[in-house]
Amino acid sequence: MARATRGERIAFMVKSLVDRPAATLSLSAFAERLGAAKSTISEDLAIVRRGIESTGMGSLITMAGASGGAKYLPRREPADVRRLAQSVCDRLNCPDRILPGGFIYMTDVITSPVLAWEIGEVFATQFANSGVDYVVTMETRGIPIALMTARAMNLPFVICRRDSRATEGPSVSISYVSGSTRTIQRMSLPKRSVRQGSRALVIDDFMKGGGTARGIADLLGEFDATVVGTCVVVATGEPRKKLVEDFLPLTVLESVDEFNRRVTVNPGGWVPRT
Amino acid sequence: MARATRGERIAFMVKSLVDRPAATLSLSAFAERLGAAKSTISEDLAIVRRGIESTGMGSLITMAGASGGAKYLPRREPADVRRLAQSVCDRLNCPDRILPGGFIYMTDVITSPVLAWEIGEVFATQFANSGVDYVVTMETRGIPIALMTARAMNLPFVICRRDSRATEGPSVSISYVSGSTRTIQRMSLPKRSVRQGSRALVIDDFMKGGGTARGIADLLGEFDATVVGTCVVVATGEPRKKLVEDFLPLTVLESVDEFNRRVTVNPGGWVPRT
Repeated sequence: MARATRGERIAFMVKSLVDRPAATLSLSAFAERLGAAKSTISEDLAIVRRGIESTGMGSLITMAGASGGAKYLPRREPADVRRLAQSVCDRLNCPDRILPGGFIYMTDVITSPVLAWEIGEVFATQFANSGVDYVVTMETRGIPIALMTARAMNLPFVICRRDSRATEGPSVSISYVSGSTRTIQRMSLPKRSVRQGSRALVIDDFMKGGGTARGIADLLGEFDATVVGTCVVVATGEPRKKLVEDFLPLTVLESVDEFNRRVTVNPGGWVPRT
Repeated sequence: MARATRGERIAFMVKSLVDRPAATLSLSAFAERLGAAKSTISEDLAIVRRGIESTGMGSLITMAGASGGAKYLPRREPADVRRLAQSVCDRLNCPDRILPGGFIYMTDVITSPVLAWEIGEVFATQFANSGVDYVVTMETRGIPIALMTARAMNLPFVICRRDSRATEGPSVSISYVSGSTRTIQRMSLPKRSVRQGSRALVIDDFMKGGGTARGIADLLGEFDATVVGTCVVVATGEPRKKLVEDFLPLTVLESVDEFNRRVTVNPGGWVPRT
């Protein structure tokens, strides 16, 4: 793009930055691509920052100097976290979702690309400064939200599997007790998927007893890896005491009344109230 | 944001549009949010379009009139498809990836958030005008790329499961023969996940015999749904004849020579060569 106008340069830069959250893009590359001086690009970036930060949905970090660059960090403000948690509650608080056995159909919500992206940015915001190396989940339904969290943080993404497979090579497996069904299950990770001594953020769709989250932490422990946080989209109100100590539930499923056909889901306790 | 400058308005609009690919955002909402006249917003959008389209990675569609709006469509040009296919090949063509049994470790590539996003945009580009209603995959490793494809197309995303679960309600299951292992397996979809008579784009990570893709098509057939296309990241060169007729492989795994420790992966035949 030769001789782009300021507006065109800004559009190009914002597109490039938003496409690659948390990745540093160099000023020199922008200058070369846009046929502009680095000083001009720096001025443009000041405008980009004001435009992006005015959305209340992200910030722009600029690094000066020869190796100067900029990166866009998604960020969800408290009001936005509250709005999102409430909208998930509103979608789940629906008698049509009650399934035999008192389960709730939530797959469409959990796997929605738009919601997964929004929730992923909320979780990424909470752990933006926690020195996370990997985002980890257990297959299957946690994958969309965990993937979007990893994308928002520009981190690699790791999936624990129910069984180890020939296509994943040497693996480490553990047994764990499912907190809800009290059955013994297995989960495994390829040996080459996680570096020894690294730090992991655990994301899952649902937590009842916390057995899966505990299992992931134990499995990561086999890699000397530390869990820096655990986030779930829906946790059940009961049992209050889970097998993991600290976790952030976006919403809490308080009760399912099959008889009166009533579902009660509320925002999690850490979600800002007003 | 009161009295934003043109540059700030453009930054805000590009951020909003790129965050929600294929979703229509209204001019009135932009005008209100930015405290500007709709005619001003229209002028801004002309600049936004030039800036975005100059990236060669997307286009901006504007709709005039009272209900006017704009949407951003990710689009990958042939040169970008070729570059991406080649970079996947380069990452996979690595003797360290050879596993016992002649398998290739590719989980880190398949589940990388950045690659999943890029490949998702490539697949979305191919089927942008095909009237797709759902993006469908089979658990597990196809999920990241299928999710990113669905996000790029602003479509709902559906995961076929190996077994039906109480948390998914009434489900439809079929048996299928795995094309590679010749074993009989099951896959299922919740009855409420797919509308009768809809059109699906099938995305998976890997295809050998094509049994899984065939199974997904058969399962969707139980919903009177049509498969409009099938995309995979890696297909094996042999067998040449798969259980599905038409599919787009980003790359083709031609051979794994365990003895000489050599992997040969090439871009798929539909990928532009020059």
